[in-house]
Amino acid sequence: MNIAVDAMGGDHAPRVAVLGAIEAAEELGIKVTLVGNMDIIQKELASHPSTGCVSVFHCRETVQMDEAPLRAVRQKKDSSIVVAFDLVKRGEADAVVSAGNSGATLASGVLALGKIEGVERPAIAGIFPVERGYVVLIDVGANVDCRPTHLFQFGAMAHVFAASCLGMKNPSIGLLSIGEEGSKGNELVRLTRQLFEQSHMNFVGNVEGRDIFAGNVSIIVCDGFVGNVALKLSEGMAEAVTGWLRSELKDSIAGKAALLFGRRSLGKFKKRLNYEEYGGAPLLGINGVGIICHGKSSTSAIKNAVRLAVQYVNNRLIENMVEQLPLWLKGRPAMRGDIN
Amino acid sequence: MNIAVDAMGGDHAPRVAVLGAIEAAEELGIKVTLVGNMDIIQKELASHPSTGCVSVFHCRETVQMDEAPLRAVRQKKDSSIVVAFDLVKRGEADAVVSAGNSGATLASGVLALGKIEGVERPAIAGIFPVERGYVVLIDVGANVDCRPTHLFQFGAMAHVFAASCLGMKNPSIGLLSIGEEGSKGNELVRLTRQLFEQSHMNFVGNVEGRDIFAGNVSIIVCDGFVGNVALKLSEGMAEAVTGWLRSELKDSIAGKAALLFGRRSLGKFKKRLNYEEYGGAPLLGINGVGIICHGKSSTSAIKNAVRLAVQYVNNRLIENMVEQLPLWLKGRPAMRGDIN
Repeated sequence: MNIAVDAMGGDHAPRVAVLGAIEAAEELGIKVTLVGNMDIIQKELASHPSTGCVSVFHCRETVQMDEAPLRAVRQKKDSSIVVAFDLVKRGEADAVVSAGNSGATLASGVLALGKIEGVERPAIAGIFPVERGYVVLIDVGANVDCRPTHLFQFGAMAHVFAASCLGMKNPSIGLLSIGEEGSKGNELVRLTRQLFEQSHMNFVGNVEGRDIFAGNVSIIVCDGFVGNVALKLSEGMAEAVTGWLRSELKDSIAGKAALLFGRRSLGKFKKRLNYEEYGGAPLLGINGVGIICHGKSSTSAIKNAVRLAVQYVNNRLIENMVEQLPLWLKGRPAMRGDIN
Repeated sequence: MNIAVDAMGGDHAPRVAVLGAIEAAEELGIKVTLVGNMDIIQKELASHPSTGCVSVFHCRETVQMDEAPLRAVRQKKDSSIVVAFDLVKRGEADAVVSAGNSGATLASGVLALGKIEGVERPAIAGIFPVERGYVVLIDVGANVDCRPTHLFQFGAMAHVFAASCLGMKNPSIGLLSIGEEGSKGNELVRLTRQLFEQSHMNFVGNVEGRDIFAGNVSIIVCDGFVGNVALKLSEGMAEAVTGWLRSELKDSIAGKAALLFGRRSLGKFKKRLNYEEYGGAPLLGINGVGIICHGKSSTSAIKNAVRLAVQYVNNRLIENMVEQLPLWLKGRPAMRGDIN
């Protein structure tokens, strides 16, 4: 197993990518290839001696966070994100992890590996922790203007992903709207609902923003604009909430005592609210495993993202997508014996 | 001052409306008129003796939570929400508070009182607590499909509201998008941005979901679909978070000690996350003060909503809207001497 890590992507590149890759390689006993400028990466590696599990693949260019994705990817053929996906294409790596420009990661993945049959638009799946398990929110930012068929495909991709990689047998799917009644919501929601109702997926109807954290549905489908607002809002609220808790407790002597006694529990609480723990969001619909990390990712976030990439490869995510997706999209479930 | 409270609206009607109205009337020294079925309301009042500040205005009908708003309001002329706004129209009440069908509240308000000059679509302003003060998110659910001029008007309405009622002198306005760069976002955002850039409002550009809780901008503009998802998501997350905190602390002896010592502080923390404390969301753009409460509102939420209604009337919200809104919409600020 070899994971290509975009060493030049993210706000704290290349340091966190290098350190995260080293930690992941050692903990998981896998190989990691750091893709980026050799000189810069070697400088980081020099102060962090690693085992032989980490190699460097040199390239000259970097796509910046604020560049227009498609143009950047087409012009910068020797950029770290393009080269990382090329390694997967040539069979030299099994998956890509990047904390860089997420649009460029998406575009590089599509250009190098192509889309899975039946997918018009690949999407990013956000994985939210709930009381028991996870909720998959798709799309969290790849596609801002969507048609009903796009949303329907997002649901089918998330279905195969959740079944393959999250151990969910027949995951329930809800459509994000502003009221549970079918008549509510905007035009996009009303038309998409009909597609899901005609499918054989476990569609439970419209759900609301509050259901993202209620844990009563496994997959929630929305366009990438709404999904990205939801993702960023929950990150921002998580940060605000931990700050409020601390300031309320610090405000009195009894509260300070509570902080002391509760240190361990509050640490676990904070960890639960910390998106970094979850590593990254899988890019679904391309013909290979790609994990998109937050631009502000820490070493531990990168390490966890590499762990997810390894897990998804082991779960045969792509093979399952290729086999099952066209069947779900055609309106009937994959049956034993369907595949030759 | 007399506030008309829709006694039949909300999941816990008429009990919470009656109790909230009584508490508000007594605490604030104002009059409250409970609008709804006399028999049902009298039964509640019988077990909660109140001062003479609370009166009942009888009507026969109720708009249910799941009814199509416009049709319900047109057909049920004698429903509590329609009659409540009629009281304002006739000068017998100064504002309306309702925890009922929010679409019907909006429609009744528009039909009875009309819209303020320059407003195509009234909107609901959600008020989010942040570290210091509040952030106004507009629209949180009145308009699912919007044009750029609608969003621009939402911003101008929130500007006048924040200046009149929240004591913000020149409130900063951000446009909710999925990246701070002007090139990002969907078509609606790109076109709306141009309108704000040409205005004299304190427009700071695009903001992201995380900015709702960061407190670095005073007003955030979005369509009612995105805004409602954001509102419900934050309510759901607030509930989940308080549950997680409790379960982490209960999980160990030290944690239980922390719960004991921190009882007061944790109570304040929980209160901060509780939407009920904030009372309700003002309906902006109609020619009168209307407050929309959560369907699940408690007595204390209704009381706080009445308090807000009184405050907004005292702040001369509608007079300020009528005077200032057309000037902000025309692209220049209201100047002393502008108004004859």
